[in-house]
Formats: sequence, C-alpha cells, structure tokens
Amino acid sequence: MALPVETFFLHPDAQGTLQKQIQQMIAQGILSGRFQKGEKLPSTRRLAAHLGVSRITVTIAYTELLANDYLKSRGRSGYFVSDNAPAPPTFSPRQEDNDAIDWSRAIGQRYSSNALPPKPQNWASYRYPFIYGQADPSLFDHANWRLCALQALGQRDFTSMTTDYYDQDDSQLIEFIARQILPRRGVSARPEQILITLGAQNALWLTAQVLLTQRRRAVLEDPCYPALSGILSQSRCNITPVRVDQDGLPPEAIPADTDVIFTTPSHQCPTNATMPMERRRALLSRAQKLEALIVEDDYEFEMSFLKPASPALKSLDDEGRVVYVGSFSKSLFPGLRLGYLVGSEPFIREARALRASVLRHPPGHIQRTAAYFLSLGHYDALVRRMGVALHERRRVMDEALVTHDLRVSGRGAYGGSSFWMRAPEGVDAIQLAENLRARDVLIEPGHAFFAGEDRPTNFYRLAYSSIPSTRIAEGVGLIAEEIAKLH
Amino acid sequence: MALPVETFFLHPDAQGTLQKQIQQMIAQGILSGRFQKGEKLPSTRRLAAHLGVSRITVTIAYTELLANDYLKSRGRSGYFVSDNAPAPPTFSPRQEDNDAIDWSRAIGQRYSSNALPPKPQNWASYRYPFIYGQADPSLFDHANWRLCALQALGQRDFTSMTTDYYDQDDSQLIEFIARQILPRRGVSARPEQILITLGAQNALWLTAQVLLTQRRRAVLEDPCYPALSGILSQSRCNITPVRVDQDGLPPEAIPADTDVIFTTPSHQCPTNATMPMERRRALLSRAQKLEALIVEDDYEFEMSFLKPASPALKSLDDEGRVVYVGSFSKSLFPGLRLGYLVGSEPFIREARALRASVLRHPPGHIQRTAAYFLSLGHYDALVRRMGVALHERRRVMDEALVTHDLRVSGRGAYGGSSFWMRAPEGVDAIQLAENLRARDVLIEPGHAFFAGEDRPTNFYRLAYSSIPSTRIAEGVGLIAEEIAKLH
Repeated sequence: MALPVETFFLHPDAQGTLQKQIQQMIAQGILSGRFQKGEKLPSTRRLAAHLGVSRITVTIAYTELLANDYLKSRGRSGYFVSDNAPAPPTFSPRQEDNDAIDWSRAIGQRYSSNALPPKPQNWASYRYPFIYGQADPSLFDHANWRLCALQALGQRDFTSMTTDYYDQDDSQLIEFIARQILPRRGVSARPEQILITLGAQNALWLTAQVLLTQRRRAVLEDPCYPALSGILSQSRCNITPVRVDQDGLPPEAIPADTDVIFTTPSHQCPTNATMPMERRRALLSRAQKLEALIVEDDYEFEMSFLKPASPALKSLDDEGRVVYVGSFSKSLFPGLRLGYLVGSEPFIREARALRASVLRHPPGHIQRTAAYFLSLGHYDALVRRMGVALHERRRVMDEALVTHDLRVSGRGAYGGSSFWMRAPEGVDAIQLAENLRARDVLIEPGHAFFAGEDRPTNFYRLAYSSIPSTRIAEGVGLIAEEIAKLH
Repeated sequence: MALPVETFFLHPDAQGTLQKQIQQMIAQGILSGRFQKGEKLPSTRRLAAHLGVSRITVTIAYTELLANDYLKSRGRSGYFVSDNAPAPPTFSPRQEDNDAIDWSRAIGQRYSSNALPPKPQNWASYRYPFIYGQADPSLFDHANWRLCALQALGQRDFTSMTTDYYDQDDSQLIEFIARQILPRRGVSARPEQILITLGAQNALWLTAQVLLTQRRRAVLEDPCYPALSGILSQSRCNITPVRVDQDGLPPEAIPADTDVIFTTPSHQCPTNATMPMERRRALLSRAQKLEALIVEDDYEFEMSFLKPASPALKSLDDEGRVVYVGSFSKSLFPGLRLGYLVGSEPFIREARALRASVLRHPPGHIQRTAAYFLSLGHYDALVRRMGVALHERRRVMDEALVTHDLRVSGRGAYGGSSFWMRAPEGVDAIQLAENLRARDVLIEPGHAFFAGEDRPTNFYRLAYSSIPSTRIAEGVGLIAEEIAKLH
C-alpha cells in the first residue's frame, strides 16, 4: 500500500531544519504505528511538491532514515517502511486512570509545602526583566562554549561523557578548580577535599544532610537565600534566623548552642553586604568558641567589578571549620547545574557517599565541557566582559534610582548583579510585582527571603543581569509610578 | 620584559589540538601569575620553532587570546600580555591545613557505610571486561548524538540550555516520553505525571524519600540492585528482603504490614527473571489487599531482543498503585544521568518539590539533546542495533559457557545484557574476581546483591554489553580455569 501524500504535514510550530522536521515526522509516524512495515512512501519529488520544500531536502531526510533502517529503498520502485523498523507496541495503553490511592495517607513525607513561589519561565518575553539569576544571551560567550562542548563530544572524550563515574568526578574539572579557581579565593585544597555538585543548591543540601540532625541547631541569615530554609527543614534541625546588618551576620547574635552557621560573607544574599575583615575574624572565633561549623556560600564572588574581591572566609580558616560552597550558575549559566563543595576530607567523604546514593554524579559531558571552557581561559574572559557590562548597567540603574527617588537598602560595595530595594512602609511588594507584571516589568518581591511570621513586606530585589542598559531607566520609571500608586 | 621562549613548553600528556594546547598554556601562565601584564611574548615564528609546530598554529592561538583580551598586539612590535588580562590573586593560599575539628562528632549523619565496593574506572583497559552497565563505544551512535547535541547547543536553544527551570523540565523531552516511550510499555501518562530524574538511581531515591518513614515497611527483592538498600536505609524505614524465585518476586511472601514494594518485574535484577502475567496480577492484588504501593524499576526493557517485551506492570494498574521508574542509562549511556518517574499527580508533586530542593533539575542541555535524539528516531535505531549485537554476543557466550561447563543461574527469556552465574559451592566470588583481574578479566561478584548476614558467596554476574564477541570465548575460558583452581 502506498501512503497517501496528504497524510504528510509539517507542524507549523515545529523546530529544527526542514530536513530534520521531515525525518522526525516520518520516524514518529512509524513509531506510533500510523505507517506500517512495507508501506510505500511518496516519491521525493511528490513529497517535496506537497510540503513546498526542495527535493534535495526530502532526499536527505530519506537517506538518514535509510541509514537508521526506518526505510528501505527498492531501486527505482522507491522507498518503503523497512521490515526492520521499530514496531509500535502491540498493546494499547490505558486511556484513563482512576486513582484509587489515598495519597494523603500514602505520602510519608511532604516537601511541596516548602516549594517557593513559581518564577516566570517566560521572563525573556518581558520588556523590563529585572530578574535575578538567569543567563543573558547578549553577554554569554556562546561560541566558545559550543566549541568546548564539541571538543567534549569528541571520540577522545567518549569515556568521560558516557562512563558511570559512580561516586567520582571528572578529574580535569577537579584539578582546574583546585589549581586555578580556589587560589583566587585564597583557598588551597587537595582533590579529595573537593566534590562537584548539581549547583550550589545541591551543595547546600548535601552539607545540611551530613551535618545536621533533629538534635542540632542551624543558624541562617535573615533575610537569606529562600531555598535554604526548605533545605534545612528536611534535616529536621532547629533553625534560628539571625537578622543581618550593614556588615552581614553579627557574630555575637549567634546562640550558644549553635552547631552549624550558614553565611554569605563576601556578598550577603540578598542585601549585598560584604562582611569586613574584623567581623570575619570575630565570626571564626565565635564559631571556634561554640565548636560550631561554618558553611560559606561564596556566590557571585566573580562579579566584583568595583574593586577586587576580598579573600573567602575559608581562606582565614586554619582549622577546617569552614565548608565552602562555590557555583558556576552565575558566571556561566544556571541550567548548567554545576557547583562544588570544599571541606575537610571526612566531611567530603560523607557528602560524596550521599551524593552517590542520591544521584551518583553530575553528567560527565557537562563536567568536561566546563573543564575545557575554564582551562582555555574563556571563563575569565567571560567574567571580565560580564563585569564591564554589569558595571555600566549598574551605573545607569543607579542614576535612574536617584532620578526617581527609589530607596536602595543594600547596594554591594564590590559589584554583584542586583540592588536590594526598600519601598515605603505600607507598600506590599507582592502586589507591586503583580501590578508591574501587567506593565511588562518583572521584579522580585522580597517576602520569601525573610524568616518567621512577622516578615517585612516592602522589600524587593532589582537585578540588572538580564536587562539591557537601554531599558533600565524606563523600567525604573514604571516601578516608581506603580509604587506611587500603592503608597 | 620579554618572556623567554624557554619557559614555554607543551605537556607531553596534554589533550586537544596543538592550537588549543598553546592557548591553554598561555592562559594558565597568565592566570597563575607567571606571565605578568605588559610582558612581551615570543614572536609566532620563534615560539613555533621552539615548540616544533607550524607558525599558523601559534598565530591562531595568539588570535584567540587576543579576542579574549589575554593578549594585545602592538602592530609590528609583537604580542604582549594585556593590561586587562585576569589578574592572579594578590593573596597566597594557605599551604597546609591543620584540621582541628572532631569530625566523628561534627558529622551528624553518616552515609559512607552504605558505600558500594569501588568499581574499576579503567575497565576499558582490561582485555576481557565482563562489566555491566557501561557504554560500548563500538555500539553507541556517537555521530548522531553529536549532531543532536550540536543542535541543542544552537542559538535557538540558548534558553533551554541556560535557563534555571526551578522545578520544571524540558517540555519536549517530557512530551516525547509521554507520547512515544511510555505507550510502548502500555503506559499512558499526562505531562504532570512525569518527572525527569538524574538517572534511575535518583528516581528510586526520590520515591523512597516521599513514600517511606521510619514507621513504614519496604519490601525489596533478594537479591536486588545493590544501591537500593542504601537508598532505603536513608529513609529509616523497616526493610524486608524477600527471596526471589524463577519468576521473580513471590507475592504471597510479602508481609502483611508492608507499605511499599520495590520490584523489577520485566527483568529481575540481577537474576534476569521475567515475572509471568499471572504473577503480575497476583502481585497487584496482593498490594491492593495490603494497601501497599509498588515501585516498578523497568530497567533494560529496551534490551528485549529475543522476543517482544511484555507490557510493564504499570500498564495493568488501574488504580495509580504503581510508581514507574525508567532510565536512559542502559539504552543511551550511564554518564548521561537521565531517568524518569511516572506516577499519580499527588506523588509526582512531592517528588518534584523534593527534587527542586535537592538539585533543582537535570541540566537543560542534556534534556534537550536527548529529546532530539529520541524524536529523530536515532534512539530506536540504536536500540535495534544494540539488540542485534547483544544477541550475537549472547549466542557466543552461551556456547562458551556450555563448552566450559559453567552454571548459569538466570539467563533471561527476553534478552538483557548479562547472565547471572553460580559457581560451585565453596568458591568465593570475591576471591575469584580478584584472581581474574590479575589475568585481565573483569567479572562482578554477586555478594553485594544479597541482603542479610547469611548471604551466598558463590554468585557472580557476567555482562556482555561491553566486551567484543571475539573475546568472549577466551575470557570465559579463563573464568573456568580460575574457578577450577578455587574449587
């Protein structure tokens, strides 16, 4: 039987080249059982005319399908669905599910209550995206990333891409972090003291699971990275939020029975405060006195474009008291999901065993691509270019904020990619964000950063990492307008 | 100051093209502070002569470094380290750490005691690797994987690669799994009932964390996938191993107070038993009677090259009682770290929230690449080609096992990639594996698959997924020799 040419059509919203779309359409017709073994396909000429594409496009698609044995060619009689083509299932799937399980009983542990407010996945379609933590296509060095990925896809790297590392990591990436990244933060570590993680989120999660139990107490900064309290609540430990000031976490406010202190000394999240050197020493000696450990999240240290970054807290630690968390989400991109943990060997050993049980290891190809990008110097060049662009955007934003008399609560002495903003009392930032969204402006309400019942409602974060500088002034103007309406 | 050409050298074991090696050497010299701003580089002619490479190679490397602003060119006077080149840290890292922490106290929860015996990372250098679960470069469709990865690296897919999906997944991959993969297993699911995971390991871990508590009881198969008991012990539930027979898990042996049953019906791990249809129904009704849930690990269903795979247990489930675990580790490669969970929405919602807290989401680029590879039909073609090759290897191995009179304990009626072997009583398979390693043969001792104190010591697994068929007979011969010595 010949398949009528009319049953072939390209989806209007299909992606990829025309050739790929044709290949895909035919493969899926066969996989779903619409096209049966032995059936004859339209000639390349007819299909090309029907779809309105060039004949060579159809010919290449057919050739690909021949190579994969979806089609066979019988000389001049044309193309047929191959007898070896994958068969559709002989049984048809159930159409409806009648769930008979009492899931409120069946679920032993709930995690969704800690879920954060959803973030818009379509942020790039907004005109004024003051959104934090997404990659800006205009700043990223896409071309060199592609080249590095291509190299990591090569035959020589087949094993590094495909292998099951069990609890191990790509040794090239570990070596580069040890030899080139950590020394810039004043940190020295051996490979056994480093573990690659699925981003900083995963690093913090592993750390909490290893160090905390329900009998222990964790201190976190208030405000802080919103996902952290969800992470800590999984370990069922006691949690004490400590309000930060201009200089970050005040050591004397840390309770005496604390076991683990989570802090962002270089660049407090979200206030952007940098902890001065004396306070860092005071924090270390407070931790020593309490026999507590410190978990340092050194996020965004690369974004120090105003003055050179100060060394990490970990660089002052001569006892192994500090567990260090690093990430490539801000300097490369968050979808990469690559971060790292640095700590004493007994700690890393447990974190490694836990990681192996939870997910084994971050994908090998991703690790190797990052290793190439770093070792060829692209990473540093990128960080420098981003610094220049962010510097300019920050200048424009600073001006606009002054013009519109918007109050900055935390600006960051070293740089960063956002301002921590305070609207007048009585302005609800969640409402503000909603109103602004209708005007094509995305801001991040500050509510989720705070702890406890009585949290301030008038803070918000304005990031300049994903908005072009030409749109900043206009966007800030709209924010000022909407604040005035709510005030 | 001019940098003496003698300080430039290429590492004998460096990787990548010569041009990349030169670029890397200079970038690292600058990053580490050996080459200082303003210093003059050797001319392309001199450096090329010194390194014994062509001048154009050096010129291209210099041009790349110019583009990244590591170097600047001053017309005819040559190349210099740029003033904008990244600066090495101004502080030197600590050299030695004197760990002062009592880690035996500081570590709240231990995971390393569940660590599995290390697997050789250099398995490919063995002549007779009867190793399980690693990708065979001679079978994998590397060329098309590269093309799909390249497409997923393109400008159009920039967002899908770089974005922070928070708790979401790549919609193309989800859709393909729902529309093309699951129907082959007789399973129908909506996108909200599917969650992408970091491999099957991660899917099992998430499931255990959601469904189990210390007051609940989990049943697992004995023997079973070795990492499963480590996963279950993290939830602190009660664990009951149930000995499997020729037909897999016997439903009547499942204790009455069971909450969750972990099983591999299509292809029991490691015995290769396929559960007959009547027993599947009996298992479902036993679970229904006990109000227990079933977690079905459908690993290796693609490797059914002897007869068509039977539908998944999940396809018989009309109550939402079965949580389904799928993986691309065997059909694509384990280093990809991609698997998926299928289950009722309330369950998937909790697993999704937990995944978001633990790691957010599997890297976007990996998800999109897999989506392309699947949708273009390469996946099915690959599975078919692997089936043909594995079929042949299995035939050769079967013959060799008969020739050498080695006893197969479980062979699998549908195919698979391994035999479950039983050495004579008294032969310790760990010792056997060690002796064989010295003779360039890798086998997997069966010890780790069993539960409890009194586990059999004479089982082992022989996989044919990574060994060429031409070496199988010889390798089996060596195994027979070593068994004879131990017997």
